[in-house]
Amino acid sequence: MADEPKPTTEAPPPAPSAGRSPTMADIARAAGVSESTVSRALAGSNLVSAKTRDKVRRIAAAHHYRINERARSFRLRKSSTVALVTCGVRRGTLSLPASFLIDLVAELAERAGGAGYDLLISRDIHEDRALMSDLIGAQRAGGVIVLGQGGHHHLLNALADEGWPFVVWGAQRPDQRYITVGSDNVCGGAMAVGHLLALGRRRILFLGDPDQIEAGDRYQGYCQAHAAAGVAVDPALVLRHHNAGLLNKARLQALLAAGPAFDAVMATSDLLALGAIQALDTAGVRVPGDVAVAGFDDIHSARHATPPLTTVRQDVKGGAAYLFDALIRRIAGDRPASVVLEARLIRRASCGA
Amino acid sequence: MADEPKPTTEAPPPAPSAGRSPTMADIARAAGVSESTVSRALAGSNLVSAKTRDKVRRIAAAHHYRINERARSFRLRKSSTVALVTCGVRRGTLSLPASFLIDLVAELAERAGGAGYDLLISRDIHEDRALMSDLIGAQRAGGVIVLGQGGHHHLLNALADEGWPFVVWGAQRPDQRYITVGSDNVCGGAMAVGHLLALGRRRILFLGDPDQIEAGDRYQGYCQAHAAAGVAVDPALVLRHHNAGLLNKARLQALLAAGPAFDAVMATSDLLALGAIQALDTAGVRVPGDVAVAGFDDIHSARHATPPLTTVRQDVKGGAAYLFDALIRRIAGDRPASVVLEARLIRRASCGA
Repeated sequence: MADEPKPTTEAPPPAPSAGRSPTMADIARAAGVSESTVSRALAGSNLVSAKTRDKVRRIAAAHHYRINERARSFRLRKSSTVALVTCGVRRGTLSLPASFLIDLVAELAERAGGAGYDLLISRDIHEDRALMSDLIGAQRAGGVIVLGQGGHHHLLNALADEGWPFVVWGAQRPDQRYITVGSDNVCGGAMAVGHLLALGRRRILFLGDPDQIEAGDRYQGYCQAHAAAGVAVDPALVLRHHNAGLLNKARLQALLAAGPAFDAVMATSDLLALGAIQALDTAGVRVPGDVAVAGFDDIHSARHATPPLTTVRQDVKGGAAYLFDALIRRIAGDRPASVVLEARLIRRASCGA
Repeated sequence: MADEPKPTTEAPPPAPSAGRSPTMADIARAAGVSESTVSRALAGSNLVSAKTRDKVRRIAAAHHYRINERARSFRLRKSSTVALVTCGVRRGTLSLPASFLIDLVAELAERAGGAGYDLLISRDIHEDRALMSDLIGAQRAGGVIVLGQGGHHHLLNALADEGWPFVVWGAQRPDQRYITVGSDNVCGGAMAVGHLLALGRRRILFLGDPDQIEAGDRYQGYCQAHAAAGVAVDPALVLRHHNAGLLNKARLQALLAAGPAFDAVMATSDLLALGAIQALDTAGVRVPGDVAVAGFDDIHSARHATPPLTTVRQDVKGGAAYLFDALIRRIAGDRPASVVLEARLIRRASCGA
């Protein structure tokens, strides 16, 4: 269809092509209108005059077009669309500049596009349990990639039990019945905190929510590194904060003013860490002189921060590739294994060494 | 449907609800299977046993389900999906960390999601002329947002003539028959170059492609600022480069080694400007001491660069809102006016004052 001449009102109606079903372009040519007019006429749009609508419908009927062609392209396309949903992520997160999630979405768009797939960005599965049915059941997408687990492990297990083809960016759980691709969060958290302990820091604020699954694993790494160094964990040194969002600076500043003193911050995302550096700077606390700060993700802004941010790099490119490939296999009825990606400590100046 | 119990194999088949069409959940409950199994059975998937498939089809037929429900959700959803395509943008661009385009995509996802719309990220319209038909004609989306014009003004005019409902992020052209939302690129380019001239710079390298429509307007601003300052434009001071991509540093370094000397760079995107700063640094050229550098966009990394980047801020949030709202009106048959957004010069240290 690529090289067919564009329909114009001057074009003579061509003879129906032998041996193939008519396309929308054929109908448009025969009716002397554009493809969009054919589309609207068949959909009954009132943006097309009654006369044109009747003419298009008559020609389409004569060519046995309509239902078959539309059903065909529908079947064809739903199988080459992949949907993205979040899970327990607050509204506004996807528009945060340079957040880890938007980096992952960008890599997925590239990966899917390279394979001839379109990417449908939809809503939050925790807010709308009917979303799988709306996307896959209604044949708008062949499968779904869930960005993050939030704290909703049981919901994801229930969706897996219902048989929907999906894969999840997140942490592995022993009893999971869904497929995950994600970083080794325990190891990543332990590396960052071990680094801080090795530099002599002893009171390390954990900035994140241990009840979120990935952040909980990072907290487990935090505890393991303390145990390995023979340093006791102080439960008061947890400042609960959703990791996919901008830092509520007032809370950190209140803690600085009234709470237990700390000499380091381990944040569960770079956005939180960058917010912490700004809040500390505003409060006259030197980074890393007074307080060392480590993040998680290695987003683009981390290396450009002042001071450049020590962080744990998640493999966003590899993660996008594994997610997409696992979903394609899942749609085909396979059950690919979950994948844990190596996390890497990136040492920069924000921890002082 | 939100509060219905989940289907289990134990659930007794309910009586058909009076007064409403059966939903997929009704069929699933009656058949004692999950909704995804109903979906697969009706689609003829071989992932469902022949026995289950026949049972589901029998029950669906008895409830007069099948065609009506699927056609209904299909009609319902296509009208609340908006597609995004690029125009003449090279592959890989959407995965660039913190590029302006991905910032715009993120804002559009937020805006669309807030209004209950899903966002379908598809391909490049310049590479696939059948894309409008594939998206709108096949009823996968109600309309299309085109990200950028590249150099393809005539293609976009032709698509407008065909009647497809779409809007374009880009520059206004006097003879355009499509709707645009975009920055005042002439004024933005003139402000940045006027700033450089006022600081005493006289040989300003234009880094970008004047044949791309938006970059061409920025070059026009470059020329206007020179004329206003009584400084002649040297055509040799144009280094042609697609603005949506990472800088080919070898080309800049070759120019540094062999070409005409320059004391400033006006880049048509922040990504190019940040690449130029790195290339100049590698070559031992001081920024801004020897060469001042200005960008365009004000992406998140611009303020964190070393030195922080002087740039022209595009209103990405306002742009996303105008694009989305204009498209919704276009889909409804209106013809909203094109919008030119004010561009703002953001002075930071990379130009020295």
